Amino acid sequence: MGATEHPWTVSETGFDASSQHHSETVFTIGNGQHCLRGGFEEGFPGEQTAGFAHRIWDQLPVFGEELAALPRWWGVQLWAGDRPVRLDTGDVDDYRRNLDLRTGVLSRSYRWHGPQQADLALSWQRFIVAGQPSLAVIQLEVQALAPVLLWLRSGLSAAVDNAGLVHWEVAGQQVEAERVELSTRTRSSGIGLAVVAEVRCLGPSGPITATRADEPGAPSLEYRVSLAAGERLLLTKYVALASDLEASAPLPVAREQAGEAVRLGWDGLRAANDAAWAEIWAACDIEIDGDPEAQLAIRFALFQLNIAAPRFTDRASIGAKTLSGLGYRHHVFWDTEIFMLPMFSFTQPELAAGMLRYRWHGLDGARRKAAEAGRRGAQFPWEAASTGDEVTPRWIPDPDHPGRQVPVLSGDREVHVTADIGYAVWQHWQATNDQQFLLDYGAELILSGAQFWASAAVAEPDGHYHLRGVIGPDEYHEVVDDNAFTNQLASWHLHAAGALAAWLAEHQPQHWARLSAELGLNASELALWLEVAAALYVPFEPESGLIEQFAGYFDLDELPPEVQAPGRTVSWQRLLGFEEIQRTRAIKQPDVLMLAHLLPDQFSAEQLRANQDFYDLRTDHEYGSSLGPAISAAVAARVGEVELAYLHFLQAARTDLADVRGNADDGIHGAAAGGLWQAVVFGFAGFELTADGWRIRPQLPRQWRRLVINLTVRGRRERIEIPRP
Amino acid sequence: MGATEHPWTVSETGFDASSQHHSETVFTIGNGQHCLRGGFEEGFPGEQTAGFAHRIWDQLPVFGEELAALPRWWGVQLWAGDRPVRLDTGDVDDYRRNLDLRTGVLSRSYRWHGPQQADLALSWQRFIVAGQPSLAVIQLEVQALAPVLLWLRSGLSAAVDNAGLVHWEVAGQQVEAERVELSTRTRSSGIGLAVVAEVRCLGPSGPITATRADEPGAPSLEYRVSLAAGERLLLTKYVALASDLEASAPLPVAREQAGEAVRLGWDGLRAANDAAWAEIWAACDIEIDGDPEAQLAIRFALFQLNIAAPRFTDRASIGAKTLSGLGYRHHVFWDTEIFMLPMFSFTQPELAAGMLRYRWHGLDGARRKAAEAGRRGAQFPWEAASTGDEVTPRWIPDPDHPGRQVPVLSGDREVHVTADIGYAVWQHWQATNDQQFLLDYGAELILSGAQFWASAAVAEPDGHYHLRGVIGPDEYHEVVDDNAFTNQLASWHLHAAGALAAWLAEHQPQHWARLSAELGLNASELALWLEVAAALYVPFEPESGLIEQFAGYFDLDELPPEVQAPGRTVSWQRLLGFEEIQRTRAIKQPDVLMLAHLLPDQFSAEQLRANQDFYDLRTDHEYGSSLGPAISAAVAARVGEVELAYLHFLQAARTDLADVRGNADDGIHGAAAGGLWQAVVFGFAGFELTADGWRIRPQLPRQWRRLVINLTVRGRRERIEIPRP
Repeated sequence: MGATEHPWTVSETGFDASSQHHSETVFTIGNGQHCLRGGFEEGFPGEQTAGFAHRIWDQLPVFGEELAALPRWWGVQLWAGDRPVRLDTGDVDDYRRNLDLRTGVLSRSYRWHGPQQADLALSWQRFIVAGQPSLAVIQLEVQALAPVLLWLRSGLSAAVDNAGLVHWEVAGQQVEAERVELSTRTRSSGIGLAVVAEVRCLGPSGPITATRADEPGAPSLEYRVSLAAGERLLLTKYVALASDLEASAPLPVAREQAGEAVRLGWDGLRAANDAAWAEIWAACDIEIDGDPEAQLAIRFALFQLNIAAPRFTDRASIGAKTLSGLGYRHHVFWDTEIFMLPMFSFTQPELAAGMLRYRWHGLDGARRKAAEAGRRGAQFPWEAASTGDEVTPRWIPDPDHPGRQVPVLSGDREVHVTADIGYAVWQHWQATNDQQFLLDYGAELILSGAQFWASAAVAEPDGHYHLRGVIGPDEYHEVVDDNAFTNQLASWHLHAAGALAAWLAEHQPQHWARLSAELGLNASELALWLEVAAALYVPFEPESGLIEQFAGYFDLDELPPEVQAPGRTVSWQRLLGFEEIQRTRAIKQPDVLMLAHLLPDQFSAEQLRANQDFYDLRTDHEYGSSLGPAISAAVAARVGEVELAYLHFLQAARTDLADVRGNADDGIHGAAAGGLWQAVVFGFAGFELTADGWRIRPQLPRQWRRLVINLTVRGRRERIEIPRP
Repeated sequence: MGATEHPWTVSETGFDASSQHHSETVFTIGNGQHCLRGGFEEGFPGEQTAGFAHRIWDQLPVFGEELAALPRWWGVQLWAGDRPVRLDTGDVDDYRRNLDLRTGVLSRSYRWHGPQQADLALSWQRFIVAGQPSLAVIQLEVQALAPVLLWLRSGLSAAVDNAGLVHWEVAGQQVEAERVELSTRTRSSGIGLAVVAEVRCLGPSGPITATRADEPGAPSLEYRVSLAAGERLLLTKYVALASDLEASAPLPVAREQAGEAVRLGWDGLRAANDAAWAEIWAACDIEIDGDPEAQLAIRFALFQLNIAAPRFTDRASIGAKTLSGLGYRHHVFWDTEIFMLPMFSFTQPELAAGMLRYRWHGLDGARRKAAEAGRRGAQFPWEAASTGDEVTPRWIPDPDHPGRQVPVLSGDREVHVTADIGYAVWQHWQATNDQQFLLDYGAELILSGAQFWASAAVAEPDGHYHLRGVIGPDEYHEVVDDNAFTNQLASWHLHAAGALAAWLAEHQPQHWARLSAELGLNASELALWLEVAAALYVPFEPESGLIEQFAGYFDLDELPPEVQAPGRTVSWQRLLGFEEIQRTRAIKQPDVLMLAHLLPDQFSAEQLRANQDFYDLRTDHEYGSSLGPAISAAVAARVGEVELAYLHFLQAARTDLADVRGNADDGIHGAAAGGLWQAVVFGFAGFELTADGWRIRPQLPRQWRRLVINLTVRGRRERIEIPRP
């Protein structure tokens, strides 16, 4: 079990400017409050370095809201003589960048050779302090390998944008002898943010005094120092952020925290940070013997989920691309509840509870959405941001035809998200037995969602209820009738809500009386739930045991073989066209198999096998949805197809680390990360809850010699060791 | 005829931060290539200082394209000790800002008293050199009234945005001893722009050496100097801009031009600038004796139109808000052809010809628009930008309901713009007798537009042709049938095109053979034009002589009297609501009277009188369209209602100078400026062309003692003096 056996480090030994945005995503660090992409303190041409914090939403055209890229707090520029020191301005060797997943410390070192014998060794380190919301630290050590006049500049800057959109206006700034302060305000939402940086610069003969540079929007401190060959300089920058969402006057708060950081110093902050990380890893680490790539990938997935999960508020959740990029404008999709949340419910349930409370706080918005569609209860938004209101655009500019627009149907039609949230609440309850959470928040979520389903399903003369014109998880087919995933999960949701209502009425009669009155629930509505649940139509072929993904799916053509040819770099949809793909059985992600993954008890072994054999082949694993491969792995493992499962697992594992889809620039694929954990725990380990505990039915990949999973099940820490038999 | 009698200066003797954006618009300067709003070199909190150049379009969501706000080339920051010197950072007296309309020189002076006895007298001057495309100069003189350590910084910065949208990426920068260079590129359209500034700083004992400050995206030069009481410092900044639309390598071009500017020096550049302006004013000046407000307003209107009119390209035109702000995203509307162009056709016809050639270059886009609507010929876009393609959004975010969208119908329905352009071409031909322009460009514009009209009008069983579901100039009524303005101008257009075709066939048979073949014109289409022209339905009430604005207009209710109450600050539409106003006869601008203004020969004196009496009363002159008042003035003058005409004239004259509509922040109302000229020339002077020349039928306002108009009619300079009888 050496370092290579159980690796904790994501490493880069050469810098490739053409993939810098991918690297920025991979080297993202954070603390559950704010994150920073892995770009360079000293800058690099074309960089997309950016930080994002939970809840700092601002409006933008078309897409509603996005998190405003934080003011640039990480900048440390330096010049050797008149020449800026960056990777593109001199010859570089010994370059190395390491992200220590165990502690979240990002370090980078290189030797820089400029013109006129300038010769420097630079070593950078930074981390965002875990365990508390606001602090970050950066340290730069420069060693002169030849005499040099160094000029350093470090401060704060509001000159940042979200892909061209400016969200901040400057409300104030200040430069003191060793401190710079910047107060900003988002332009539309009016959120105030204060950032304070304390900077210390230590030269060969002691502290170096700064010159103040109070540029509009960019207060900073400057240092000039001559170094002889071999001499070193150490610059440390302590940064605190505070917003008026947490304090009415954030500037003094940030100032005090930055001052406290200086008192603790680098070592003190590292100690606090490392202790907080040790707790996180004790709760959720997974060890895989015999497969270093899988080991690193699962730790990387856990790291990225852990830094993105809101740890200091229940008014936020994890967006589809976490806090690591601009993808999907930080909006929250079903990705969170179905893909990411299980890991938290089973390892750090307080974080899962917070994210479900975010949905509870959004109930008013979900009720507005239902009411606008003429339905009852709560219809959760396909995309959520600061509130529970729908923020899916109804149209977006057509990327292929400037000046035209294409409609976006998912906000109106991808209705399954309401059942997904119901499912997550129920799963959380099962995983934790947290009855207080259920009473205070969970029950209302489940019951309000059931009201939506009972009012959305339409009784037709065939004796069934139907949901027509929906989009299921497989988004290659838009506007279909009776999507099996949607209908069967909605039916499950209605059953669960009925059972919950009965349980509440029996065990918590006062609570039930109040809640049912608030929601306007009566016996006839409860009866309707059961009626709809029983009669919601799920297309099914009894002779084969195949569930039909939606009504009419089996009448479609097979995907032409030439489209499936290897070596492609885009999706089948892109190859065949948006309209044409709808006429085929090709699917973006395993829609029916996802249902089997969520509701395993509703599939016999034979039926699961039949559906797996049919649908796995027809799924665009490579360039369809990034949500698919991990779930495909979990299902394949369950049916005993371990080698196929491992191939799907690798596809998921490489989503961001190897950028196999070519779109990791936009941010971490949070659902793929959460799915990876599920593939290991629900798939290879075969973990499942039982009425009085849990059990495993392991199916380990051949090269895995041992698997260790850390969970918290119903309040109890479990360390589950699964040796290879 | 003293200074107050014939004023040339727009003055401000106190600075009011709450109206700074209005002042920025008013004090815009430019040279027909690029413009700069009147903000301060040293900055001011909340400023919206911005420069724009023709053709530097970049894409943006929803609105298609806008001109990218130019990199900040005008900045000169200064500090007294550690304190920034701005109007908000000290006590200010003797403040004055003057725009000299005769030369386009903007000057500003004030005394600044900071803490600790800092006491400065500042005097700023700047102008964008007329007569050539790329140069601008700024001069700052500082006098120390008490001993002071001054720090100045001047350079270039790419940190600019269009209301929050960043259009530039930095492609390169350089700081030399006395020169800074910045190369930028628009993010979507990829237009390269180079800006070079040569800076000279002269202290009491000679030139002051700069320190270089090469901030990313903001190269600049810094100067530190101690001044004793009474000592002065003079900073001069010579700026050149060049884009790769004009030169494949714009940086050396800008560098050379900035160097040439240094050689010419301030005085040399002033001499060249003043000579170029003298030519402009000789061509178009209007003198009004006895009415200083009217005199200043007409000169201000002429100044703003002259600095915005493209003088160095025929690939651009004047946007609705000129180059002076972000309003309407710089898009080109009918405002240009119907309101602004006549002044140019009658004073500087080469500029009018250039703007009509811009439409000619856009014919392919106009043909695409027609083809998409299933029509023939060219349908000009309601909003145009870099090409002739339609850039009117089909929907925009609802300002009153964040997250929702409202449809915008004008792009599809405000079809009259095609006839407006045909009219402008014809008028230009009549004003200039420029046969070469007609053959090379004008004929194709008129004929292609006629093809559109003949294919758009629909024959119905009543024996008439109809245009249904359109929007006329009065945008309070959307989706109406047979708008009189649209139909009668389309009919005129078809007649004119038929006459033009006949003239070409007779006088330019070879040209006609080629052009008619290119456009696919044959005898049956020409016959159809005449048929449609004769049978296009214009609703009319014979007994009263009233043209009905559109079919059914006379059936509408009168505007409730309470809505008309004085003291309002918003439009009738806003007061009554978007839907409700459509049920009334209240109109946004004089739709039928605009027709009478354009086609005076088609209205008898009695009929004009009847329509004037009916429609003038029902027009929202105060807060309807800014296009209306000047035209209302012209029509009222024609019917002899000179006092009413003068009231409307004042309303138009005060649009931007007094911001009577409260929206001058967004930029100059170009159509109101052009309309003001028409009110004077076509209205009060009663100027009109005749078959062999021109004539006037003056109706001067009572206080006007003499009116002098400079025109160029059919190639001849005319100075028309109209004394009060």
